[in-house]
Amino acid sequence: MSPHGDKSDAAEEALVAETEKRPISTILIVIAMQTEALPVVNKFNLTEDPDSVFPKGVPWVRYHGFYKDLHINLVWPGKDSSLGVDCVGTVSASLVTYAAIQALQPDLIINAGTAGGFKAKGAGIGDVYLACDVAYHDRRIPIPVFDLYGVGLRQACVSPNLQKELNLKIGKLSTGNSLDMSPQDEASIVANDATIKDMEGAAVAYVADLLKVPIIFVKAVTDVVDGEKPTAEEFLQNLSAVTAALEEKVTQVIEFINGKCLSDL
Amino acid sequence: MSPHGDKSDAAEEALVAETEKRPISTILIVIAMQTEALPVVNKFNLTEDPDSVFPKGVPWVRYHGFYKDLHINLVWPGKDSSLGVDCVGTVSASLVTYAAIQALQPDLIINAGTAGGFKAKGAGIGDVYLACDVAYHDRRIPIPVFDLYGVGLRQACVSPNLQKELNLKIGKLSTGNSLDMSPQDEASIVANDATIKDMEGAAVAYVADLLKVPIIFVKAVTDVVDGEKPTAEEFLQNLSAVTAALEEKVTQVIEFINGKCLSDL
Repeated sequence: MSPHGDKSDAAEEALVAETEKRPISTILIVIAMQTEALPVVNKFNLTEDPDSVFPKGVPWVRYHGFYKDLHINLVWPGKDSSLGVDCVGTVSASLVTYAAIQALQPDLIINAGTAGGFKAKGAGIGDVYLACDVAYHDRRIPIPVFDLYGVGLRQACVSPNLQKELNLKIGKLSTGNSLDMSPQDEASIVANDATIKDMEGAAVAYVADLLKVPIIFVKAVTDVVDGEKPTAEEFLQNLSAVTAALEEKVTQVIEFINGKCLSDL
Repeated sequence: MSPHGDKSDAAEEALVAETEKRPISTILIVIAMQTEALPVVNKFNLTEDPDSVFPKGVPWVRYHGFYKDLHINLVWPGKDSSLGVDCVGTVSASLVTYAAIQALQPDLIINAGTAGGFKAKGAGIGDVYLACDVAYHDRRIPIPVFDLYGVGLRQACVSPNLQKELNLKIGKLSTGNSLDMSPQDEASIVANDATIKDMEGAAVAYVADLLKVPIIFVKAVTDVVDGEKPTAEEFLQNLSAVTAALEEKVTQVIEFINGKCLSDL
């Protein structure tokens, strides 16, 4: 939207370096489900926006408030207007992330939520992960180069101090629009070397990368994908307890971020 | 974005009725690939926007121009900045559609492009379809109601006169982010009763529905999914010839639309 057109690469690099040394001020938390969002909303006394920053008619919800030096914004894609269920998945997540970045110009995005975990890679119920990178497992385009585009690998903001201080597990995240896992999904997840799988991360990362906003992923394990129980059953069983663990870690992340610059993370 | 908050349902219905009786003025053509877009761009002498209506940094491209009584806008998600391939798939398509609707407030969206066709449902190479409805085949969420959300069925704008006048085939469209088709995709495509499959339609339809813009789908068959040849090979072989057939039909659609109201379609 800049009316002045292109900046030179050098000027852009200088801007990035400057941004990295400025304390983080505005954060955008992107969460896909109300059940995952409300514990964080309540913890920080965030309030729903009476004048939405989003267009009329969309179900997207923004909560916001101030905590210490931070302006906290939490967006959730809301409920499907005809079906009443949370608008999960990559399309809704990418749209609400795009619209929120345009409206709020955040310094950092936190994509928080629940995920499936692979016990073969060390994940257990209730574990909270900081994802180091994220890719898709359901975009198979078997044409050279398009195949890589389909995988859509993106890096999270490097945050070694955050990881050490909060003792978070580190793993790769793989994203797809299905809650279950087909054999083709599984092959792609293995190729992605993923420890956890979700339904939004790679899409949120794509938008963050497009608009040059650093992003971190905080994902709590609700179900063991390579375990005995069916995913949907285990997911619903653990959703409420695991969102409490998620809220606790997100709170710690926010406490850690407060007063720091991107280069301190 | 309306500052005046909610309109009553009656007022909104009146607005819709009024819109349906006003000649269509601004149209938005959403196309995923440059190869599909350029024949239409050239046909109507559309020019690329020097001052993009999109944010700085995104690869999205808008071409526009005037033809008879129509302001024609064609958007294409552009090329991936690091890989150089067209940004195909649901996430890019939904984002560029959202941003274009916000910037241009079109009266009608035309999602045009290539598709795979099922010969078991009567489709052959080069056939051009008007999709009557569209759904996803790669969003399996086996939890009650979420399963329906995943399918994401949306209707195209009813257009019996357009279909009859242009002698277009009618079929259901199914969308997924993979060019190939897994057995799980196939089961969902059968459940969707689809004749054609693409990689964007349901996402463009979702955004059009969110923002209440009528939409039609014009899809040309590049490959027979249930045929002998591998999809990627057949797709690349036929892409150029079939985009010519697509351009011809899109031109006829635009000629038909000119001077008409939504209720005349």
